[in-house]
Amino acid sequence: MVYQRPPGKVGRKYGEVVHWFIAGDVPEYARDITLVSTDPSDHKSADVVLSALPNDIAWSVESKLLDAGLNVVSNASPERMNPRIPLINPEVNWEHLSILREVKGNWVIKNPPNCTAAIISMPVKPLQDLIDSMHIVTLQSVSGAGYLGLSYLAIDGNVIPFIKGEEEKIDAELNKILGKQFPDRFEPWGKPVYVTTTRVPVKYGHMAVIHAVLNKDVDTEYVINRLSRFKSLPQERELPTAPKEPIKVINRVDAPQPARDLDPMSVSVGRISIKNRVLRLIALGDNLVRGAAGITILTVETMKALNIL
Amino acid sequence: MVYQRPPGKVGRKYGEVVHWFIAGDVPEYARDITLVSTDPSDHKSADVVLSALPNDIAWSVESKLLDAGLNVVSNASPERMNPRIPLINPEVNWEHLSILREVKGNWVIKNPPNCTAAIISMPVKPLQDLIDSMHIVTLQSVSGAGYLGLSYLAIDGNVIPFIKGEEEKIDAELNKILGKQFPDRFEPWGKPVYVTTTRVPVKYGHMAVIHAVLNKDVDTEYVINRLSRFKSLPQERELPTAPKEPIKVINRVDAPQPARDLDPMSVSVGRISIKNRVLRLIALGDNLVRGAAGITILTVETMKALNIL
Amino acid sequence: MVYQRPPGKVGRKYGEVVHWFIAGDVPEYARDITLVSTDPSDHKSADVVLSALPNDIAWSVESKLLDAGLNVVSNASPERMNPRIPLINPEVNWEHLSILREVKGNWVIKNPPNCTAAIISMPVKPLQDLIDSMHIVTLQSVSGAGYLGLSYLAIDGNVIPFIKGEEEKIDAELNKILGKQFPDRFEPWGKPVYVTTTRVPVKYGHMAVIHAVLNKDVDTEYVINRLSRFKSLPQERELPTAPKEPIKVINRVDAPQPARDLDPMSVSVGRISIKNRVLRLIALGDNLVRGAAGITILTVETMKALNIL
Amino acid sequence: MVYQRPPGKVGRKYGEVVHWFIAGDVPEYARDITLVSTDPSDHKSADVVLSALPNDIAWSVESKLLDAGLNVVSNASPERMNPRIPLINPEVNWEHLSILREVKGNWVIKNPPNCTAAIISMPVKPLQDLIDSMHIVTLQSVSGAGYLGLSYLAIDGNVIPFIKGEEEKIDAELNKILGKQFPDRFEPWGKPVYVTTTRVPVKYGHMAVIHAVLNKDVDTEYVINRLSRFKSLPQERELPTAPKEPIKVINRVDAPQPARDLDPMSVSVGRISIKNRVLRLIALGDNLVRGAAGITILTVETMKALNIL
Repeated sequence: MVYQRPPGKVGRKYGEVVHWFIAGDVPEYARDITLVSTDPSDHKSADVVLSALPNDIAWSVESKLLDAGLNVVSNASPERMNPRIPLINPEVNWEHLSILREVKGNWVIKNPPNCTAAIISMPVKPLQDLIDSMHIVTLQSVSGAGYLGLSYLAIDGNVIPFIKGEEEKIDAELNKILGKQFPDRFEPWGKPVYVTTTRVPVKYGHMAVIHAVLNKDVDTEYVINRLSRFKSLPQERELPTAPKEPIKVINRVDAPQPARDLDPMSVSVGRISIKNRVLRLIALGDNLVRGAAGITILTVETMKALNIL
Repeated sequence: MVYQRPPGKVGRKYGEVVHWFIAGDVPEYARDITLVSTDPSDHKSADVVLSALPNDIAWSVESKLLDAGLNVVSNASPERMNPRIPLINPEVNWEHLSILREVKGNWVIKNPPNCTAAIISMPVKPLQDLIDSMHIVTLQSVSGAGYLGLSYLAIDGNVIPFIKGEEEKIDAELNKILGKQFPDRFEPWGKPVYVTTTRVPVKYGHMAVIHAVLNKDVDTEYVINRLSRFKSLPQERELPTAPKEPIKVINRVDAPQPARDLDPMSVSVGRISIKNRVLRLIALGDNLVRGAAGITILTVETMKALNIL
Repeated sequence: MVYQRPPGKVGRKYGEVVHWFIAGDVPEYARDITLVSTDPSDHKSADVVLSALPNDIAWSVESKLLDAGLNVVSNASPERMNPRIPLINPEVNWEHLSILREVKGNWVIKNPPNCTAAIISMPVKPLQDLIDSMHIVTLQSVSGAGYLGLSYLAIDGNVIPFIKGEEEKIDAELNKILGKQFPDRFEPWGKPVYVTTTRVPVKYGHMAVIHAVLNKDVDTEYVINRLSRFKSLPQERELPTAPKEPIKVINRVDAPQPARDLDPMSVSVGRISIKNRVLRLIALGDNLVRGAAGITILTVETMKALNIL
Repeated sequence: MVYQRPPGKVGRKYGEVVHWFIAGDVPEYARDITLVSTDPSDHKSADVVLSALPNDIAWSVESKLLDAGLNVVSNASPERMNPRIPLINPEVNWEHLSILREVKGNWVIKNPPNCTAAIISMPVKPLQDLIDSMHIVTLQSVSGAGYLGLSYLAIDGNVIPFIKGEEEKIDAELNKILGKQFPDRFEPWGKPVYVTTTRVPVKYGHMAVIHAVLNKDVDTEYVINRLSRFKSLPQERELPTAPKEPIKVINRVDAPQPARDLDPMSVSVGRISIKNRVLRLIALGDNLVRGAAGITILTVETMKALNIL
C-alpha cells in the first residue's frame, strides 16, 4: 500500500500545518507553500522530486514516482546500499553521478548518506590513498535522533554509547561513497573500518574521533596541507551552497568543539597528530545541514552544473 | 621552600574550614577532625601519611616526610613515572607492592594513578596477553577537572576534545601499571596505546571506548568470561573497600551509561564485540572513587593484608 | 468501558514487564511480584487498593472497585476536588481523614494531591493564620512530566513558563488541603492564591518561590520558629515513612537548591525574609517522593495509626 | 590609586589579547583595534568615553576622566543610585537625559542599568500608572555571572535561588528609571517592589515573572494593546539600534522561552492574564544586548538624536 499523507494536510499551507520548534518563526517564503500529496500526479512537471519521507514508507512512494517516469533524489535509507544507485556527498564523489548518463530514462539517487558518513567521508577523501584501516568513535548530537527522539531524563548529563544500526551504516556507506565505480555499479572501497557510536548531550553537530592506520610515513604538515587545500567540483564551479573550504583545519589546541566551531556546510578538523603510523584527527560537522538538507541542495546544484538535471 | 598550609587553617576543625559543595552536610565523623600542618613533626606517630596535595607542591612536602622517615601513599602526579616507585591499582598490580620488601627503611608509593588509567587498566588486565595494541577514546566527566575546573558556559551542550597532558599520562601509566617488575624497578608493558581524550557534559564518571587489536582469534564469550570471572587479592581477602566484582559486564545493549551504570569501585563494561581481530569494549568507572579516594583506601587495606603496613 | 491492562502483562512478573530507566537494577523484592488485573475480583482480600492509574481511565476503574466494596487510595486527579472526598497531605490535614468515620461502608481518598501542592502546603500550614494572600512562582523539574514527558531539545538550556492545568490545580488543591472540614464535606480556605508555574531543566525536585501577604507584623525569627518546630501526627507517632523534620529551614544564604538540598520526604525552606508585610520564602520538595509514592505510603501509615485501616 | 591596565596590553591589537570564547572568530573589524590605556590623555579627542570597567575600579577611573573634562557613559554599578546622575533605558526614560542640559561642562551617565532592571522596566513603563505594587521572581541565565562566573558542577541541572545584591539593585534601579525628574535630581517612583532572583541553567536571556497589583479594573486586551503599541523616541527617530517593537507580545501559550523567543533588543512578553486585580505577565530579554552593550549603543544614538552629543 502506498503511503498517503493524512488528507487533512494536502492542500493546506505549510505555515498552518508545521509544528515549528526552533527559534524564530516559520520563514515568510515558506509559510504559504501549499502541500501536495505524494502521488505522482501531483509532481508531473517536476524536473526532480526530493524525498525526505520516513524510512518505513519511503521506498514504496519513491518506486511509484520512478514508475511514473519521475527523477528522485531521496534521503531515506532504503536502497542506499543498492550497488546500482549512487550515494552522493558532492565534494567527495560527484564523479559517481556519471553513472546516470548510462541510464535510459529516469533515475533515483540517494543523498545525503547517513549524516555521520557524510561528515567523516570529507576529511578521509583527500587522505584515502594513505589509509589501510580506521578506528572511528563518534560523539553524536541529540538532534540526530529527531526533535522528540530523546527525552531530557534519558540523555541530560549522560552518554548513551549505542545508536541502533548506526555503526553498520557508517562502515557500509563510507565504503560505498569512497568506493570504485564500474559502468553499471559501485563496489566498496574495501578497507576495514571499526566504528563505535555514542550519543552525547549536545544539541547540534556530530563529532568523530578518527585513528587512521597509514600505509606509509608522512608527517602532520603533509596531512594538514592535503586537508586544507582540498577543493572539488562544487568549489571550482562556485555553486551557491558550496562552502569555500569544504574542510576547515582549525589549529586551536582544543578544537573542534560543537559550541564554537560548527559550520553548516564545512567539516571542521582539529587535533591532527601522528604516532608510529597512526594518524589521529577529529572531525565535526553539522548533521542538519551537511548531513541533511544542505547536502541535498548542493547535490541538485552539482547535477545542474553537470547537465544531468 | 616547603609548602605550608595558610596558618589560619592549622588547628581548626575540618567542618569549619571546608568549602562543602556536594549534596547533604559534612558527615558528622569528619566535622570535628582537627587540621594539622604538613610538617613531619605533625605526623610522627603515623604508620603512613596519605598525601593528596596539589601537584605543584606535593613532591617537596612528600620528600620532607620521606627524609623524616615516614611512609607516604601519594596521589599527586610527580614521580608517578619514577621506575623505582610503585604505581598501584590494587586488583591489577598488587604484586608490584612486593618491591617495598626490598626497600630498607621507609618508602613512598603512588596511588591512585591517573583516574582514567585506573579505570581502563581494570578490564585490560585479564585480557593483557591477548592484546597487541589499543586505540582508546575517552569521554571524561567534568568533575575530573575539579569543582571549579570548567565553567557552565564552556562545557554545557558542548564537547571539548582536549585535556592537557591526559593522553600522555594514560599511555605511560597504563604501560607502567601493566608493566614488568624487576627486583629494583618497573619496566613498561611496551604495547602501543593510541589515546584521544575528550571532556563531555557529564558530572561524574569517565568512559573509555577501547578498540584492542588482538594477537589471536577469540570469541566474545571467551572475553566476557575472562572479564566477569576476574578476581584478585582484594576480593580473595574480602577487603572492606573491595568490590565483589571488580569488572561488571552489563549485557543491556546500550550500557554502560554514567547515569545508570556508575559504580563507586567496580568498572562497568559493555558493548563487547569482535570484528576481524579487533575487540571493542566500553569501560565506565567512577573517577572520584575508583579513580581517587577509594583506590587509596583499598591500597592501604591491601598493604595491611600483605603485612607491608 | 472499564480499562483492562493489555492481557499480556497480567500474570507476569514485574521485573519482566517493567521498563526500568533509573540507576541500578529493579530491586530484588519487587522483581518477582506477579501483576494482577484491575478487576475487583483480583483485589477481594485487600484492606485498601492503591491506585496510580493514568488520569483518563482512573475513575472508571476506581468506581468499579468502590462498587465492589473495596477501599481506595488514589493518586489520580479526577474527583480530587469533590468536596466529599478527602485530599490528604498527612502532616498538613490528617484531621480530614476523620470524615471517613461517618462513612458507612467503604471509601475513597485522594492522595497525593498535585505534587506541587503537596510541597507548598507544608510550610504554609504553620503560617496559615498569618496569611491574607499568596503569590507563588514555581520552578518545576522535568520528572514531573514523566520519563518521556519532555524532549532534550525542548527543555535543555531553556525554561518553559507553562504547564497545562497546573496553576489551577495548585490554587484549588492548596485551598482544599488547607480548607475547613464540615461533617460531610470540605470547603476551601478561601484566600487568593496567584500562581505561575514554569518548567526548568532540572531532573528532580520542585521549587516554589512564595510571597505571602501577611495580616499582621511578625519578624523572620518568629516565622523560622514556627516552621522549624512544626511537627504533626506522623512525627508524634513516629510513623516509619515520616521525616523527623517535615520542614527543614536551611540558613545557607543560597538554599534551597535541588542539587544540594533535596530531601525525599521533608520540604526544605530557605531565603526567609520580610519586607513591609510581605513574607518571602522558597520551598523545595521531592516531587517523586513527598509529591507521589512517599506521601501515599505515609497516608496509609497514618490511617493505620488512626485505626481507620 | 587609579587602575592601570597591565602594561603588556596597552598598544597591542585587540585580536591578539582577547580571550575569545564565543562561536566563530573575532570579527575582522575588531581584530586590529589598538588598545589604549585608561588615562585621560589617551581619550582627549573623544566626544564620549564608554566605560565597561570592573565595578571595583570603575569609579576611580571614571572620576579621573571627568576631572579631565571628558563625558562618560558608564555601565559599572557604582554611583548608579546617585540622584543627580541619570540611569538610562532609552525607550523608558530618555526624557531623563534632559537633566544634562542643565549641567555646565561635562557629564557622566549610567547605562545600562542592572541588566534585569533594563528588561523589566520596558513592559512596566506603559502600565506604570495602573500599578500599585509588584511581585517579581526572576529566572536569570548563567551568562549574567560572566563567562567563568559559574562552574558546570554548581549550576547544571540545578537552580541557585540567590544572586548577591541583585534583588536590592532591581528594586532600586526600577524605581529610579521609572522615577520622577526634578531640575537637579531624580526621585524614586515609590511603589513597593518585592523581588526574588534565581539563577537557572540557561546560557543567555533573563526571564521575569511579574505579578502586578493594579489600582483599577482593566482587562487583558487593554493591557496587550498598551504593551504592543508602545513606541518611544528611538522608534520614532528610527535609530539604527532601536528594535521596531520594543515589546513583543507573543500569544503562543508557552511563551516566552529563552530557546525560542529571545530577541537582542526587544523584550518578549507572554502569559498575560488578570485575576482579581492582579496582572500576571512574563518578560524575557537578552541580558547581553538589551541588558549590556546594545543598550549603551542605543543610548549614545539617542543622545545624538537629542543633540546632547
